[in-house]
Formats: sequence, structure tokens, C-alpha cells
Amino acid sequence: MENFVYQNPTKLVFGKGTIAKVAELIPVESKVLMTYGGGSIKRNGVYEQVVRALKGRPLLEFGGIEPNPRYETLMKAVELCRREHVRFLLAVGGGSVLDGTKFIAVATFYDAGDPWDILSKHATPTRALPIGCVLTLPATGSESNPFAVISRESTCEKLAFSSPLVYPTFSIIDPETHYSLPRRQVQNGIADAFVHVMEQYLTYPANAPVQDRFAEAIARTLIEYGPKALRQPRNYNVRAAVALCSTLALNGLIGCGVPQDWTTHLIGHELTAFYGLDHGQTLVVLLPAVWRHQKRLKRKKLEQLAERVWDIKNAKDKAEAAIRQTEEFFRSALGMKTRLSEYGIGPEKFQQIAARFDARGQKLGEHKAIGAKQVVEILKLSL
Amino acid sequence: MENFVYQNPTKLVFGKGTIAKVAELIPVESKVLMTYGGGSIKRNGVYEQVVRALKGRPLLEFGGIEPNPRYETLMKAVELCRREHVRFLLAVGGGSVLDGTKFIAVATFYDAGDPWDILSKHATPTRALPIGCVLTLPATGSESNPFAVISRESTCEKLAFSSPLVYPTFSIIDPETHYSLPRRQVQNGIADAFVHVMEQYLTYPANAPVQDRFAEAIARTLIEYGPKALRQPRNYNVRAAVALCSTLALNGLIGCGVPQDWTTHLIGHELTAFYGLDHGQTLVVLLPAVWRHQKRLKRKKLEQLAERVWDIKNAKDKAEAAIRQTEEFFRSALGMKTRLSEYGIGPEKFQQIAARFDARGQKLGEHKAIGAKQVVEILKLSL
Repeated sequence: MENFVYQNPTKLVFGKGTIAKVAELIPVESKVLMTYGGGSIKRNGVYEQVVRALKGRPLLEFGGIEPNPRYETLMKAVELCRREHVRFLLAVGGGSVLDGTKFIAVATFYDAGDPWDILSKHATPTRALPIGCVLTLPATGSESNPFAVISRESTCEKLAFSSPLVYPTFSIIDPETHYSLPRRQVQNGIADAFVHVMEQYLTYPANAPVQDRFAEAIARTLIEYGPKALRQPRNYNVRAAVALCSTLALNGLIGCGVPQDWTTHLIGHELTAFYGLDHGQTLVVLLPAVWRHQKRLKRKKLEQLAERVWDIKNAKDKAEAAIRQTEEFFRSALGMKTRLSEYGIGPEKFQQIAARFDARGQKLGEHKAIGAKQVVEILKLSL
Repeated sequence: MENFVYQNPTKLVFGKGTIAKVAELIPVESKVLMTYGGGSIKRNGVYEQVVRALKGRPLLEFGGIEPNPRYETLMKAVELCRREHVRFLLAVGGGSVLDGTKFIAVATFYDAGDPWDILSKHATPTRALPIGCVLTLPATGSESNPFAVISRESTCEKLAFSSPLVYPTFSIIDPETHYSLPRRQVQNGIADAFVHVMEQYLTYPANAPVQDRFAEAIARTLIEYGPKALRQPRNYNVRAAVALCSTLALNGLIGCGVPQDWTTHLIGHELTAFYGLDHGQTLVVLLPAVWRHQKRLKRKKLEQLAERVWDIKNAKDKAEAAIRQTEEFFRSALGMKTRLSEYGIGPEKFQQIAARFDARGQKLGEHKAIGAKQVVEILKLSL
């Protein structure tokens, strides 16, 4: 097991009827900016619940944060925060709203240049507005981690940053608010959480038995309850199980002391930037391709996945069986496409995508051995 | 799943050679009181490492905190903290040192009466000295939770309190410092962690699938690595796995949104108070007795334990098989006694022990249905 440091300060407030608690979680005197997305929170009653809870408090709002939140949009909120002396950000929505809000939180105080440098040049933010969250879509784990992924339209980029300053101070997760989610968002969310687990698990054995078993625990629960959430959208316990899995998949815990991959995510971000695919869609297409490409190096963990998660006892090639079973889960149980060609995408831009990793001097994977050449090979395997 | 709130602010610093980091984790100007136990930290080099790391800092020390830390001893440290204006407590040791230090932390500022009221009358502390920890014995989970158990010699009591104020700000866990632990402490520690898991798991099905699987993950890892720690005391990865399991067993996570039991612990505390048995010894004797007594109500989870943790596929009475297998684990794999009679204890004081729960108006178990009469029955089953 590798050495690690782990601290997660976010207060999780989980369960039915918990949105009203937002009032006691935000300092009374703070001027709040509520951020949200395309307006689904106005249709499902969440907006109403939040506004009612904060009645009489100084409250501004900023809607219209896109899926794959854009720098261009977020900078307008930054301007608003500076002008109005906002003191607290309340993100009401899914991972995109939350990620965007994390960027607003640090960009508001960033005065050493363009805040985009935090993403493109790994500039370190030194101050952030405090963030609270009402999570309406379980998927990214952003409600309890220090990560955010931001897109920039003008340069066709999608990049990530991390800062302990942007852990939400609290996250309210009421699974009842997930009842009305569109099927596609539920599919994407389950796929995202599942792949988060795999990015931290499916590498090589590292003498971390309890982290392995925790990862397997989340994966098995998503496999059992993910499809149920699609079939029974108003089943509270099913929604609660999926929501908790999504948080646990990327709150840092299962990544303690183990090697991590993240190839699927990093290539996936490019597919979203180039083709506009949903984040979850990119992951489902890429994960099996990454595993096939890296099968020799990942064999032991693929076999462990076969045995402990997929209950495959007898197979000639257990590693291959695990990959097939995972593809089948995405395809049949979640009803998602697993090939780029199904989205009408061909190999035309693969070299251009791969060149970006070269340009950034970025090598991917737990061995840092996947470069531009291998990225093209992986993309071809996903056609 | 039940609603829950979860927040765990402790920073875990885990791994080889991490004790030196204590210097950067404590504010430079703070006057520190280092607390410890019977002096094992002077023999295994931990004392030396801490003192070296804090060289030049204002540092006092208070040794001699007993296993089952005593109110009478701790009040001497409280006096020292008040007199010397101590600003930071550094607990160096196992769960007893840490629990004792948690009491010192709140008692120092408690001026509404005798600090014992925090335990006996559930008085709420409103202020505490910050606590840091260098953990030398994995067992209680106290390094990452808000709980402490304190004994009072004059009244023969052993009581618990909980306050969010006493979460350690950091806990350093260097598994190499566990190499020299006496066999008995390792046995007790593994048993304690295992029973912590069971107190939160072995109740009734509660639609909490990922919490169940996390609990099973810790239990299985302890079953595999606990006996290895006894056989290979200097195997780093084994020690690391056991240490991480101990922390995860009682950092609050697996208890989120589920019913909890704690009968074994609460009767166990009385056995320690009356007979002086080690905490771990009491748990191993009582757990199977509690399960046998509550078998009808716990049947479903006992069967789940049989299938998922003990890999029992075919048994006439799966619940009974799970109990036997657990007893066998304590007895053969950990080498511990599983009967009170093996400690020369008979039923003479059972009524007196049970009467205490009556006197406190305390009912035990996940159904709050275990009273004095049932306590006597459970104790008889453990003879």
C-alpha cells in the first residue's frame, strides 16, 4: 500500500425532505448566489424548495450553466460575484453546475491573470468563496470532492483542476429529487460512477485489500441498482443506493494508497470537446477499448474483476470475459451505445485528438506509458 | 435507507515514515501537551521520533494514561492544561490514550460542574482543546471519530461520550510502529475492529446495500489479514491493511443510514468495569451470545453474513453456522477465549451488572428491547 493523506471536510446531508436544511447550513448574514443549469430545478420543485428555505435572506441567482460548463458563461457569474460582493455560492443541480460553481469560487478571487490559467497552466488558487450544494443528479461525485472539469468553447478544450478550497462545505442529497431525471441522465450518471470506481481499481494489484473490496462493493451495488433505477424511477431505496454509490465512487476514499488510471476520462474529455458527446457516453465507449489495449498490464485486476464483481468462475480468458461482461452491462443493462461508430464518428480526427496529449507533454495511465500513438490505437479499438 | 448526516473532518496521514510530519500539522506557536500511556512509545522509538520532530517547540508531556483510561488520572492532566495554558493536545498511543485525551480536551474548559457529568449525565461540552494523534495501536477507530470511553475507579463505571469537538484534527498512522505490539494487543485490536463492523451491520435488512457491502469488505479483510498480522508481525502490507480496516470500521461511514446494535459493547464495558477483562476479550465472549439470544430478530443478516463473509453456501441453519464460524475465527484464527468461564468468571454478579442498565433506564439493541432480564440471559449464554 502506498502512503496517503486523506481529509474530506464536506458535510453530507442525505435523505428525504432534507432541502429545507439549507437555511441552517449557510451563515445567515452571507449574500448568496444560487447557481443552476437549464431550469429543470424549476420544473421538479427544487428551486421552489430552496427559495422558500432561504426566504428573507440576501439571495441572487445565476442560471444557464451548461452541461460541460463553459468558461465563457462562468466568467459572467464571476463578474456578478465581484460586483455584488457575493459571500456564498449555492450550487443547485448536478455535476456540471457544481463544477462550474467551483470555478466561479476560485476565479472570483484570482487576480494573477486570466482564471483559465488555473486549468491550462495549473495555477494554484489561494482563496475561494465557500460553496454549498443541493445535488439533483447523482453522477460525478463533485458534491464531495475537490475536482472540477471546465470547457472552453473558443479553444475547444475541456480541462480539469483540483483544489482543497473547493470541497463543498455541505452537500444536500435528497434522492426524491432524482425521480424526474431524464433516462439519459440516469444512464450517464450510473456509467460515470461505475467508471470512477474502475479508474481507481482496474490497474494492478497494490496490496490494498480493503480499498479493492470497497471498490468492488460500489461496483456490485451499481450493477444491481443502476438498472433498477431505470426500471423503477420512483423507488426511493433504489435511488438512494445509486446516489450514495455515486458519492462514494469519487470522494477520494477508494483511491487512498493505490495507483490510478484515468485514461478513459482524459480521452473522454477530448471526445466531448471534439464531438459534443455526453461525458457518460464517452466513458462507456472508451473503457472497454482502454482495457483491451492495456490487457497485458491490467490482466490481474481484470481477472479479479471477473471473479469478485462479475462472479465469473470458469472462463478460458477471465480478463476478456470481464471486459465483455462490462460492455454487456453498459449495453444491455443500461441501454447505452458502446461504439463510436454508433454515434456516426469515424477516425478522421483521431490524430488531431492524440496530438493534444503530445502538445501538453501528457502521458496517461497508471504507468504513465500511454502517449499519442497509444491514444490513436485506443480510439480505433472504440470504433 | 434512513436519512443521515455525515461529516468527518479528521486528516488521515497514513504510511511509512509519516511521524515526522507532526511538526507541520501542529500550529508552530501552540503550547503542546503530549499524552501517552505506559511507556511502550519510549521502547519502540515513537516517543523519540515525536520529540525530535517537535524540537524547539513548547512541549509538555503527561504519561501514564491506563488502558481503560481513568477519570482520576485524566483530571490530573486537566489541571496541568489549565495551569500551563496548554493549547494543543497530542495523543501518542492507542485508543485508550486517545479516548483519555478527548476527555482532557473537553474537561479542561468544562466549568458547569464536575466534568464526569459529560459521561454520566450527557452534559454537552461547548469547547475543546484541539487534538492531534499519532496512533500506535489500530483497534478502536478513535483516531477518526467523535467517541471516547472513560472509566471511573471510585464508582466502578465505564461510560462513553460523543462530541464533534473531539474529532482529532489529524491522525498519523504509521503501520511500521505496530511491528512491536504485544500479541494480546493485536488480538484485541482485530477483535475490536471486527465487532465494530458487526455492531453496525448485524441488525436487520435496511435497504442500505452499499453500506452492507462496505461492512462485509472490512470484515473479510480483517478475517484474511488479522491472523496474518499475528503470524507475520513485521509484514508492512499486512499491518497497513489491518490498520486501515480498524479506522474504517468506526469512522462513522458504514453506520450511515442504518440501524445499529451496540449491545455487545455496552455489556462489555460492564465486564471490564467489574472483572478487569480487556475490552477486546469482553467483545469476543459476548458477540456470539448476543447473536444467539437475538437469533430470531437477526436471522436475515446472520444468513447474509454466512453467505457473503463466511462463504457458507449450504447449511441447514445458516444463521447458526455464521455464529459458529465467527466464534471459530475468534478462537482458532485469533487464539482468543470465547467463554467467560475460561476467565474463571461465574454468574455471581450478573444480576448486579444487569441492574445497572435498569438504573440508567437503558434499553439495548437495534430494537431497544434488551433490558436487565435479557442482559442476564445473554451473560449466561456467554459462560
